[in-house]
Amino acid sequence: MSFIATPQTMHFAGALPLQSGAQLRDYQLSYETYGQLNADKSNAVLVCHALNASHHVAGVYEGQPRSEGWWNNMIGPGKSVDTNRFFVIGINNPGSCFGSTGPMDANPDTGEVYGADFPVMTVEDWVSAQARLLDGLGIVQLAAVMGGSLGGMQALSWTLQYPERVRHAVVVASAPNLSAENIAFNEVARRAIVTDPDFHGGHFYRHGVIPKRGLRIARMIGHITYLSDDVMNEKFGRELRSAVDGIAREGYHYSTQDIEFQIESYLRYQGDKFSEYFDANTYLLITRALDYFDPARAHGGDLTRALAVARAKFLLVSFSTDWRFSPRRSREIVHALLENRRDVSYAEIDAPHGHDAFLLDDPRYLGVVGAYFDGIADESTKEQQQ
Amino acid sequence: MSFIATPQTMHFAGALPLQSGAQLRDYQLSYETYGQLNADKSNAVLVCHALNASHHVAGVYEGQPRSEGWWNNMIGPGKSVDTNRFFVIGINNPGSCFGSTGPMDANPDTGEVYGADFPVMTVEDWVSAQARLLDGLGIVQLAAVMGGSLGGMQALSWTLQYPERVRHAVVVASAPNLSAENIAFNEVARRAIVTDPDFHGGHFYRHGVIPKRGLRIARMIGHITYLSDDVMNEKFGRELRSAVDGIAREGYHYSTQDIEFQIESYLRYQGDKFSEYFDANTYLLITRALDYFDPARAHGGDLTRALAVARAKFLLVSFSTDWRFSPRRSREIVHALLENRRDVSYAEIDAPHGHDAFLLDDPRYLGVVGAYFDGIADESTKEQQQ
Repeated sequence: MSFIATPQTMHFAGALPLQSGAQLRDYQLSYETYGQLNADKSNAVLVCHALNASHHVAGVYEGQPRSEGWWNNMIGPGKSVDTNRFFVIGINNPGSCFGSTGPMDANPDTGEVYGADFPVMTVEDWVSAQARLLDGLGIVQLAAVMGGSLGGMQALSWTLQYPERVRHAVVVASAPNLSAENIAFNEVARRAIVTDPDFHGGHFYRHGVIPKRGLRIARMIGHITYLSDDVMNEKFGRELRSAVDGIAREGYHYSTQDIEFQIESYLRYQGDKFSEYFDANTYLLITRALDYFDPARAHGGDLTRALAVARAKFLLVSFSTDWRFSPRRSREIVHALLENRRDVSYAEIDAPHGHDAFLLDDPRYLGVVGAYFDGIADESTKEQQQ
Repeated sequence: MSFIATPQTMHFAGALPLQSGAQLRDYQLSYETYGQLNADKSNAVLVCHALNASHHVAGVYEGQPRSEGWWNNMIGPGKSVDTNRFFVIGINNPGSCFGSTGPMDANPDTGEVYGADFPVMTVEDWVSAQARLLDGLGIVQLAAVMGGSLGGMQALSWTLQYPERVRHAVVVASAPNLSAENIAFNEVARRAIVTDPDFHGGHFYRHGVIPKRGLRIARMIGHITYLSDDVMNEKFGRELRSAVDGIAREGYHYSTQDIEFQIESYLRYQGDKFSEYFDANTYLLITRALDYFDPARAHGGDLTRALAVARAKFLLVSFSTDWRFSPRRSREIVHALLENRRDVSYAEIDAPHGHDAFLLDDPRYLGVVGAYFDGIADESTKEQQQ
């Protein structure tokens, strides 16, 4: 049985200054909390989300038993991040489409829906917004900040933007920046959306349409890169849809447009589903934030110098078959931290599932994170006993 | 100085029966030949093309000094495949858009442009069509058939469909079938084309439009998979366009739709160029032929049994960083041939360029192929002396 989660909203009247020079004003953030904040407010854990996720990290919504949060296998009572010990905060980033102010909302300057006029957000901007939410909750310092993929970039950025506010950072399946190939995949997905005639320059809302064709293509590309070649071969291989559907005529149907292979059926389904609920402008914003993240950039590409300000202790986790955020990229972060004599644990999990592994139930992975959080809990207890 | 190539055409009045059960009737094939066919017609080499190529394999067209054939670095006087010794034939497959009968031509049954009604072609169908061209040229047996990628699949299929007509097969950067991931990339590209409103179910010609948006996306996806992550990082990395163009304002411009990184500029350019000349229905047909190729399928997935009928000698070549047709896939073919006690040479070239390497000037690669063809030439000389 999962516990019941309740989404909350915090409104911010003061404008958030952004890296682009623009600002976001009169905005709200959706968030959820699990567990109890202790008396000295020292047991807070902030969870940062990746592309297609939200503040709904764990638990289920009242009366919706299948509405588990996206990291429900990791976070909850007695789980790796134990909500009996930690006060866990899930937050939806501004620009997203799941409750926090985003492109689908009205621009207070014009009264019109933002659409493509929503300001470009960076990882650093999100972390600034998250810090203001913590201010609102009266939390000065986090026991830990954690996230996977793009969420891991936010966790890393926390240790650079607010070094004194983070005791631990858990950075899973992430990277110090995107490779050219990663940017390339993002760009193809964005072009599919932007060149969809229903995109209308990002102001499709006022035309009463949605660029679903583009969103479908974007999601299909994404799905391919989340999985490993091996796991795709294992799950789908070259299996024909006719074999699965028990269609009378076995074998190839010789069509360029109909579904022939199971992998095609899977991808089309994922694309269709995604296009029903995800906002096209959000997709552009979030992939761009991924592209832009590069803390070493301000230091002439020297990651060691970029990470010198970090004071947190770190757990890094990567997965052997993740070709989108490969172990090599996590090791770059580990090496840069070690060169700065930071306290770093690193686990490279031999998992077949590619990038997706960071969301899946690998016992070694959940065990590593659990042991790390046990250590954080023990630290706090010791401090209290002293 | 390259030699002058002259395209030729052969017309076929008899219908070509296809694997789908359909037939292609009243069609023509474009081809080119280089070098001289010897008296006993024993020195012919057939070159099979991949997705985006044609019968124009080597040389240049009269008055067009930059019109080099796509394998001009491999084939010509004194090159690895020496046209002073071999009679080389380049052929454009039916269904392509470079001269042979394809979707842009009129369907003899209706007088209308084929469009999406062009019959689905397989690798086996192409090989059948190629065999008829050889019949027309009076060539009973090939000294060698060769190709890279999809062209390598055709070379392999030659040894199974016409085992007595092939003395040697040179199969470069190829595979015994596509993996689920490869099919997935093809499917996304096809969906981008088919869901472009200008596709009109494949009958866009009669609407006077071209589904360029879809073709651009398809080509961008293709380009990413042709290159390795390493070579992309080396060529483009995270370099900004502003740095290259010398735009006054350095650094990020904070835009989701404008070009920010050099890799984006490159991909958009490649997509635009491709959409100007490549036929959308041909793209669907050729990627589908790739998906369908799977000689082991008729043998319960047993590649060794599938290749048992082959009589040719083989050279297989793969490239270390090719993740689209990885060395592992070439080794599957090598092992299946060895289990059949066939004569196989195999070279795994350590090259950084990914799948694209099969078209590039790697001296070890060109040397291996050259040495193999020297051996073929010597064989013929010896036979003549006996």
